[in-house]
Amino acid sequence: MRQSEVSISDIARIAGVSHTTVSRALRESPLISTKTRERIQRLAGELGYTPNAIARSLQTKQSSTVGLVVTSIADPFFGDIVKGVEEVARASDFSVLLSASYNDPEQTLDIIETFHRRRVDGILVASSRISDNYSRRLHHTHIPTVLINSQVEGQTNLLHWISVDDRRGAQMAVEHLQQLGHRAIGYLGSHSRPASSSQRYQGYLDALRATGVEPSPSWVVIPPGNEASQEEDISAGQQALSRFLAAGVTAVFCYNDMTAIGMLTSCHAKGVRVPQDLSVIGFDDITIASCFTPPLTTIHQPRVELGRLATQVMLDLLQERPGANHTLCPTLVVRASTAPLST
Amino acid sequence: MRQSEVSISDIARIAGVSHTTVSRALRESPLISTKTRERIQRLAGELGYTPNAIARSLQTKQSSTVGLVVTSIADPFFGDIVKGVEEVARASDFSVLLSASYNDPEQTLDIIETFHRRRVDGILVASSRISDNYSRRLHHTHIPTVLINSQVEGQTNLLHWISVDDRRGAQMAVEHLQQLGHRAIGYLGSHSRPASSSQRYQGYLDALRATGVEPSPSWVVIPPGNEASQEEDISAGQQALSRFLAAGVTAVFCYNDMTAIGMLTSCHAKGVRVPQDLSVIGFDDITIASCFTPPLTTIHQPRVELGRLATQVMLDLLQERPGANHTLCPTLVVRASTAPLST
Repeated sequence: MRQSEVSISDIARIAGVSHTTVSRALRESPLISTKTRERIQRLAGELGYTPNAIARSLQTKQSSTVGLVVTSIADPFFGDIVKGVEEVARASDFSVLLSASYNDPEQTLDIIETFHRRRVDGILVASSRISDNYSRRLHHTHIPTVLINSQVEGQTNLLHWISVDDRRGAQMAVEHLQQLGHRAIGYLGSHSRPASSSQRYQGYLDALRATGVEPSPSWVVIPPGNEASQEEDISAGQQALSRFLAAGVTAVFCYNDMTAIGMLTSCHAKGVRVPQDLSVIGFDDITIASCFTPPLTTIHQPRVELGRLATQVMLDLLQERPGANHTLCPTLVVRASTAPLST
Repeated sequence: MRQSEVSISDIARIAGVSHTTVSRALRESPLISTKTRERIQRLAGELGYTPNAIARSLQTKQSSTVGLVVTSIADPFFGDIVKGVEEVARASDFSVLLSASYNDPEQTLDIIETFHRRRVDGILVASSRISDNYSRRLHHTHIPTVLINSQVEGQTNLLHWISVDDRRGAQMAVEHLQQLGHRAIGYLGSHSRPASSSQRYQGYLDALRATGVEPSPSWVVIPPGNEASQEEDISAGQQALSRFLAAGVTAVFCYNDMTAIGMLTSCHAKGVRVPQDLSVIGFDDITIASCFTPPLTTIHQPRVELGRLATQVMLDLLQERPGANHTLCPTLVVRASTAPLST
């Protein structure tokens, strides 16, 4: 289908000059007169010539491509990260190869393998589950890699990470509930993101213990599940409600906004009033968090910023500038799903 | 940074055979004995050799890459389309280059230009606004292209489209409201997606006129805006409510779920009960449509299927099988935001 594409040889033939002259004119070489350069560039434009990025990448050893692997493409959380990555990449004339791991560590390795075969210049991983032999595999590939919201053992100068401080964010969520007078506070975690769920659980414990409260085991619910999908989260929130009510908590800190939204829908269905009967707080601050009933109090993660910063670190590494790890601080966004403990 | 990568020459040197022998062994050529082939393949594996997809693409003239342009990456509507594209592409060992147009026709052309330079095999466009000279530009590039939910003038055998029937979907939405007894029905359109908004407006008119109702101009609101972003949609829905209430409609058909959700939040704020005082119906059926209060009645678009089918048509075109245009039928999903007209 590409037979009719215009080549440098075609331009040379039509212009009556050598292949080398055309090639130099298109590369703005100073060896060619301005007049000739302009004539050839104009002709190339008229003929619809487009330089072949693949051939050039073999010469420069750069493909100007970054590979990005996310847990799920359809999830609004990752959508914002991808947006930040794409913005910064495009501003530097990089293209983004996108792939989804569906929370499967083996799939993640397969994707990295494909990225490697395609000679991406760098890899960004915003996937919640990374297998243990991941960093060993990275040593093999020698491709600069930046992890978003996860960290692995065995850091090298090719491996960096950008994270939001999960533990601190969780602590802020629970402190907000404590300031409203709540003492019996539940934690709804995520089995499918063990690393960040455990960090958020630690932040929850930090806040409780700072006020001398030892949580009852019945206050903590980690629903089963391996997908880390929106559907799984919503259903986890819906099903966990009855356990929290039985445990007698007056407020619940949910792993993320989707599980909190699931819990809100279940509250509506069961006639549990939020926030009068139960305060609910999420984590993420997805765009539509303010559109629920009641609008969701949550911990804001700077998602677009995570994507932008990770890509910037990647571009720094590619220019052999030192890369740096970053921990971003989340912020509390108070809306209407949390209220003072009614006495 | 790639100095330490293993090349075919390295393998040849270590194995004590020629470059050609290694190359043949890795390509499973019958010119090499099974024993030698296995020895070289084992050695290549141990050394961490990965074939260079870029070099191979120059030989085969195929990059096994499709370029995908969407209006917005962070929007859950497009997230599902991207998911469908990525699924089918990966199953055929294609990679996906992703870029966002932010609803700007010029940006869309720039992206196509970049895809062309990178020698993608095919282009998928899920962007709501395509400029008029788009199909002319496509003629130049000779790259098979499939449009998702849009159509352009001047079809060629390299240009196909997959759409959901907007007009029929709108008609179904309005017929549902009519069956509930509503006569004064509003339409909240979208200025930033003129083509699909106009199709949905036609479907709205079809349904009204079929029952002998001529809509008052005050029943139709097309809010300003050019971004086609979630934020713009939510705000459009919030701001349009007072105009519909002033116009005396008892039900509103909204361009999409996000504008409907904006309207729901405004109803809550103003004490307008949905569906008792006002029925609201959306379009799209995004994953969280069922989580709002009340759960949103809407028209379901098969988004993941749109992405899958478009990619399948693209792969067909690449194998020189005839491509086909497809119009998918949307379906009505009745939840709780619509109810019989109270008399």
